[in-house]
Amino acid sequence: MMLHFTAPEFARRKERLLTEMAAHRLDGLLMFQQESMYWLTGYDTFGFCFFQALWLGADGRLALLTRSADLRQAQHTSLIEDIRVWTDRADATPQGQLRDMVASLGGAGGRIGVEYDSYGLTAANGRKLDTAFDGVATLHDASGLVDRLRAIKSPAEIIYVRQAAKLALAARDAAIATIGEGVDEGEVLAAMQGAVFRGGGDYPGNEFIIGSGRDALLCRYKAGRRQLDSEDQITLEWAGAYRHYHAAMMETVVVGPPRGRHLELFAAARQAMEACAHAIAPGRTAGEVFTAHAHVMDGHGLAEHRLAACGYSLGAKFTPSWMDPPMFYAGNNWLLEPGMVMFAHMILMDSASETAMCLGRTFLVTVNGNECLTDAPLDLIVNSL
Amino acid sequence: MMLHFTAPEFARRKERLLTEMAAHRLDGLLMFQQESMYWLTGYDTFGFCFFQALWLGADGRLALLTRSADLRQAQHTSLIEDIRVWTDRADATPQGQLRDMVASLGGAGGRIGVEYDSYGLTAANGRKLDTAFDGVATLHDASGLVDRLRAIKSPAEIIYVRQAAKLALAARDAAIATIGEGVDEGEVLAAMQGAVFRGGGDYPGNEFIIGSGRDALLCRYKAGRRQLDSEDQITLEWAGAYRHYHAAMMETVVVGPPRGRHLELFAAARQAMEACAHAIAPGRTAGEVFTAHAHVMDGHGLAEHRLAACGYSLGAKFTPSWMDPPMFYAGNNWLLEPGMVMFAHMILMDSASETAMCLGRTFLVTVNGNECLTDAPLDLIVNSL
Repeated sequence: MMLHFTAPEFARRKERLLTEMAAHRLDGLLMFQQESMYWLTGYDTFGFCFFQALWLGADGRLALLTRSADLRQAQHTSLIEDIRVWTDRADATPQGQLRDMVASLGGAGGRIGVEYDSYGLTAANGRKLDTAFDGVATLHDASGLVDRLRAIKSPAEIIYVRQAAKLALAARDAAIATIGEGVDEGEVLAAMQGAVFRGGGDYPGNEFIIGSGRDALLCRYKAGRRQLDSEDQITLEWAGAYRHYHAAMMETVVVGPPRGRHLELFAAARQAMEACAHAIAPGRTAGEVFTAHAHVMDGHGLAEHRLAACGYSLGAKFTPSWMDPPMFYAGNNWLLEPGMVMFAHMILMDSASETAMCLGRTFLVTVNGNECLTDAPLDLIVNSL
Repeated sequence: MMLHFTAPEFARRKERLLTEMAAHRLDGLLMFQQESMYWLTGYDTFGFCFFQALWLGADGRLALLTRSADLRQAQHTSLIEDIRVWTDRADATPQGQLRDMVASLGGAGGRIGVEYDSYGLTAANGRKLDTAFDGVATLHDASGLVDRLRAIKSPAEIIYVRQAAKLALAARDAAIATIGEGVDEGEVLAAMQGAVFRGGGDYPGNEFIIGSGRDALLCRYKAGRRQLDSEDQITLEWAGAYRHYHAAMMETVVVGPPRGRHLELFAAARQAMEACAHAIAPGRTAGEVFTAHAHVMDGHGLAEHRLAACGYSLGAKFTPSWMDPPMFYAGNNWLLEPGMVMFAHMILMDSASETAMCLGRTFLVTVNGNECLTDAPLDLIVNSL
């Protein structure tokens, strides 16, 4: 069994979760988020693409229902001992098997929390779940319950986050060493992702964002590569991932002489980043960080070129996204606390002039303020031959 | 705009979908699967991690509701012209905005299909969707409707699948050139994924599976790398991905002299693969392919060491998985047709002796039978110094 944390660490997490469940008067919790399963037991898989669920009873008992392809995966990567398997058939009813499993563990008649807001529980399967449990137990939405606990990292987790940050910086170095006129985006991607893998790191929760020319204005991955021109711009958003913990960064690199608009946008992005770095502190809200960012951007007359969010929490995340709550958006009153890991991204996209400028750094919230984990100079990167 | 297919190709797909919708008496379809959106319009994003939906009315009108971060993404990658944005706020109600959008396009009072079985529509959002549309339109589960159309590839799609297969073979060469005593798994992963990226390819729909020693018996990705011993085994399952189209392969590579059990399992895996290659033909069912595999495995006395499924369809897939329906499992009566791309994986895991042996190849179903797209010798790969 390959566990990335000690038994006492997992025991503390379980204790925190059982306390939360008691506060919500839950007799048990059905987890569908892979992030919750990994955090609570170490279970590490993308098998959540099929129906599976992890049960935690108020009595502390754990049980997993999954498919045969994940039986050994759970045995090798988690501390779950009670693993049950459902089999693919045209008439398979895994939700009914889950109900029977919960009943066998004393959950019948109980008040059960369910992670309804999970990629691992599609709306179609959610309906089947409700039907299967009808008359057997009452199901209550407990989405976000584990997320709240996961948001605050333990010292053991922060060790992995720091390693992820080192890999993010290594990927940055690899990118800067590769980018130049005539270089294919695919070479840049191979260099960056290769630096993470060679350092013992993992696939990211979502694809690295890479786009140049006009597509430097995009902030999602897409298929299709191009070669860099003699005067070009390339936007990169990436994360070092280690034991699935993420540390993200973002930069727009200019090839050839920067345009005046690049310099204008960069000045605003750096000032906004500095304002966010000041606002990321215990007792401040996620919404206040967004306001700090928007205030600078809008002061530069760039309101129409920024996004409606400027960052989010990072942790041990699985696909399709490395984004974790809370997010930096207007009015979000989630309080920042020591141990939270927050990614701040300053994204400026000017469609009229087709100019992009982005900056992103990851911060650890400390007792007094924060520490930038992906510390690299806040200078415009220009790669000229 | 970067479209990977011609306007007539997209028009044909839309025509096929409108015909299916008419057959199901649907006045409109709400798509939540990123795969459906990519297939129908080119829209290429992992933004499905948040709430978004694509509408197609029976009148042929398309409209997308998404977040601001995906506005330009939709403009740059798709032919969708009507793009509407919902904004992150603590009290955001995008499902209500979606209802209003559908009503504005004439969908009120209609019979609307919904892709309820989508990672892009969590159970929590599915409930909000039902509430928002209550009394406005009737929603019907239309999951799988686009999947059925996507399963059969056009000639234009097959060009990309063939390119994906070339990248899969390049990754295989890179793996074999790298594997050896003392080599870190991370080096192997970097070499394989780097070969795909350098060839213009994409991130896969799920992580490449890599595991050695005892973990060669796993068939999912997990965090944590190790170095290969002088006598070792490493199981790899990977896909070349091009324009998001996948061609997958699987091998267990032996380091140092193979054990007798390796040879026994390999003989069965190869024979089962040959049986499947014979069974993959138009008019045969997915279930028949599974039976062909199970018959060989069980004839070798290996029933307890095989899985309950032995492959699946491949196409343009997004995370968390590259697996598409139909799957090869017992009793699946989905008929194979020309233009389908099927991955067959022979997975043998003997826990008692901790021996793994896997083989996987991708086949294009043709008019007469099939063509192996990832054609490499079915020989046991032994990497000795």
